[in-house]
Amino acid sequence: MEFYPIAIEKLIEEFAKLPGIGYKTAQRLTIHVLNLPDDEVREFANALVKAKGTIKYCSVCGNFTDSDPCSICSNPNREKDTICVIEQPKDIMTMEKVKEFNGVYHVLHGNISPMAGRGPDDIKLRELIRRINGEVKEVIVATNPNIEGEATAMYISKILKPLGVKVTRIAHGIPVGGDLEYADEVTLSKALEGRTEI
Amino acid sequence: MEFYPIAIEKLIEEFAKLPGIGYKTAQRLTIHVLNLPDDEVREFANALVKAKGTIKYCSVCGNFTDSDPCSICSNPNREKDTICVIEQPKDIMTMEKVKEFNGVYHVLHGNISPMAGRGPDDIKLRELIRRINGEVKEVIVATNPNIEGEATAMYISKILKPLGVKVTRIAHGIPVGGDLEYADEVTLSKALEGRTEI
Repeated sequence: MEFYPIAIEKLIEEFAKLPGIGYKTAQRLTIHVLNLPDDEVREFANALVKAKGTIKYCSVCGNFTDSDPCSICSNPNREKDTICVIEQPKDIMTMEKVKEFNGVYHVLHGNISPMAGRGPDDIKLRELIRRINGEVKEVIVATNPNIEGEATAMYISKILKPLGVKVTRIAHGIPVGGDLEYADEVTLSKALEGRTEI
Repeated sequence: MEFYPIAIEKLIEEFAKLPGIGYKTAQRLTIHVLNLPDDEVREFANALVKAKGTIKYCSVCGNFTDSDPCSICSNPNREKDTICVIEQPKDIMTMEKVKEFNGVYHVLHGNISPMAGRGPDDIKLRELIRRINGEVKEVIVATNPNIEGEATAMYISKILKPLGVKVTRIAHGIPVGGDLEYADEVTLSKALEGRTEI
């Protein structure tokens, strides 16, 4: 569009490349940036380059990290005999917020989805198997509670059990603070199935 | 949060500063950036710095520009006797898309809103008045069709009419392709009021 200077069009274009950001939003963000002080824009640009430049994947668990192994894998207070398997690095943050888990993680960087043509070789499963030694007692599979996540959990269980390791799956049930009325039937049936004595 | 390296937290923070972007979205965007090739991230960072560094406001109309006056103000084919007044630089793009208007623009960079404490001195009204000379025949007020935009339009009309210039307002009415059923009463009443013979 000829009415915007090239430098503006270029920035709009860059914002619009981001996931979930359309042209109108990109335009709004660009105008916001143009109204910022110079040093704040530079700080934003630096944060982009620096994050990309310094962040790698942990060679042990696959988490984002600026040192290798990552801070969790190299922490002597974390119990190395329990590995929690999740799909994405961001799931580590979700788990850590709970402050209940003191083991280590393994990031699959995806899930198994026959529908989408993603098989066991497309995720970091081989790396997980390589971590199973006499020391590891339990693998908690915390993949997402959807079809792909369940399929992935089942597959992992099938592969790891013969290696003599306990494989568990996080529980399904009614969310705390939720209302029975809003629970779907599958969740409710899982909640019944997983009932515990009180 | 200790589980993300500082460089990631910093980038999430920067994204979260943008309007309409919350922490979760900022996290998603950051992870997207980390998965991009190095040169694409650098290109994004450069676009930010360059847009901020090269873009100024046109000293005549207030549009974003990389040269002064802007490409519209300096275009000899644009009719300088008709000024279209809009609230924001992005409104110029909206107007230009219509391809019907061949005059020049004046960006107010805001609107008059007594409720929000924004008066005539808070927008580029003085700059507009300064542009009214014998050459200018018509000022088309295309501020937004809301309370602030209407108040601004009324005020501009009151100020400019004594200077002997024709002040017009873009028409209100039923949107083309719309349905009478979904038109609100105010719009409908304006549409009736502005009816033309066929």
